[in-house]
Amino acid sequence: MLAAHLAAPAASAQESMTWRKLDPRNLVYMELAEGMVVFELNHDFAPATVEQFKKLVVEDFYRSLSFYRVIDGFVAQAGDESDLDAPNAQAALKAEFEREFDDELSWTRVQKDALFAKETGFIDGFAAAREGDRVWLTHCPGVLAMARNNDPDSGSTDFYIVIGQAPRYLDRNLTIFGHVIDGMEVVQKINRGPTELNGIIEDDLERTRIKRLQLGKDLDENEEGIYYRMDTNSKGFIEMMESRRNRKDDFFHHKPPKVLDVCQVPVRTRIEKSNR
Amino acid sequence: MLAAHLAAPAASAQESMTWRKLDPRNLVYMELAEGMVVFELNHDFAPATVEQFKKLVVEDFYRSLSFYRVIDGFVAQAGDESDLDAPNAQAALKAEFEREFDDELSWTRVQKDALFAKETGFIDGFAAAREGDRVWLTHCPGVLAMARNNDPDSGSTDFYIVIGQAPRYLDRNLTIFGHVIDGMEVVQKINRGPTELNGIIEDDLERTRIKRLQLGKDLDENEEGIYYRMDTNSKGFIEMMESRRNRKDDFFHHKPPKVLDVCQVPVRTRIEKSNR
Repeated sequence: MLAAHLAAPAASAQESMTWRKLDPRNLVYMELAEGMVVFELNHDFAPATVEQFKKLVVEDFYRSLSFYRVIDGFVAQAGDESDLDAPNAQAALKAEFEREFDDELSWTRVQKDALFAKETGFIDGFAAAREGDRVWLTHCPGVLAMARNNDPDSGSTDFYIVIGQAPRYLDRNLTIFGHVIDGMEVVQKINRGPTELNGIIEDDLERTRIKRLQLGKDLDENEEGIYYRMDTNSKGFIEMMESRRNRKDDFFHHKPPKVLDVCQVPVRTRIEKSNR
Repeated sequence: MLAAHLAAPAASAQESMTWRKLDPRNLVYMELAEGMVVFELNHDFAPATVEQFKKLVVEDFYRSLSFYRVIDGFVAQAGDESDLDAPNAQAALKAEFEREFDDELSWTRVQKDALFAKETGFIDGFAAAREGDRVWLTHCPGVLAMARNNDPDSGSTDFYIVIGQAPRYLDRNLTIFGHVIDGMEVVQKINRGPTELNGIIEDDLERTRIKRLQLGKDLDENEEGIYYRMDTNSKGFIEMMESRRNRKDDFFHHKPPKVLDVCQVPVRTRIEKSNR
């Protein structure tokens, strides 16, 4: 009965949970042979990266490109491998690793004095961390970020998805510009490369290929659903977090420390098929 | 170039890394349609659970059973679902959630004042935590543990594998008795169940099935390989950890906090095909 006890939010929290409807203009659908993956992009933290990525998606840049470097428990990286060689024709992107915290951002605290930051929290469903007036998105599983070379401003087209235990030491060093909101189990089926080659899959035929990427707003009405995510600012979400922080269930023979790992707090997605 | 910079241990650490040869009597091979998964069992922390599990494996108890509850990012649970209903014929196991720390255990410290424990470390390749004279294995990705009901002593046959961000709040509440040392990418292909049903896959045909489990020592010589894991007590391993704690690579525009998440430190496996 493990999962039954541990995965469900308390009934009271479920009742008061409110859900945030996602703007289809911020959604990107990635079609793989293994299934569909849906990303939510984050314009607040990475406006230039999101703009360029959307442009590339509209231009169908990623069609037939592949996940060429995949390390189990770490990242799945895709694109045209241009960052392995010469820069490609796309404009190199200025780093968007962090930003100033201001009143435009909502903040739901998760943990003070966490291991990798003075404070962690959620901003509209995105896991984040703060220190003074600086705030950044954190490398949790499912995060979508731009690959780069040593030059901080060298990201352009190749992206990666975090597929394992949060590599938080990458925080503030790469531009996170979105996260997976649906189809993480599809992402987990992406073919891995050999560890000794740093995940590089040399045989092109063994790579998981991107059939296409599409913007949510460009999808056919029949394909598109309406996506909702738990509203991390809502009373219900905060209650759910507190019930995880203070485990009262009899199952807990040993009461866990009253702390939360921001990358381990589930923010659920709900989909309603549109019937326009 | 992301992965190249970040996944490889420093060259010096690689040179001085020593590897521990694993005893085939502690290995269990799980064959799925998707591929082979290899577990290393931990007798030091869970002697009774390991003994019973080995006995069940020898009796071929798990043949054709399935992963019936699978929550993406959390756990994949398998067995005969006996813990959903009445206890089965197998003896219920006494809890082996933690043990006394004594001189028989080697300890390589990873982090003091970690989020979920005063101190984390490795014991012969297993991620662990300590507080006073108590020590326990930690719920990192790939961990193999016994499911149970509310009664701490109710585990018997159904087991789970952690497949997502470490659910550390389960520490000291369940008997961890092994971990995946090979084939985690196969584990990640196990079919997921619906979140709203707590991962329960009602249609038996949609479940990933266990073809069989076998003890390492019972395998045909041609199937068996010799498994090595990084020796977490070795100078090379400690150097590798310190190079991760103190990132000197130019790639790190922002120097990460000098901390390590015990569940995010890679302990690699190497296999040599036996040619006896």
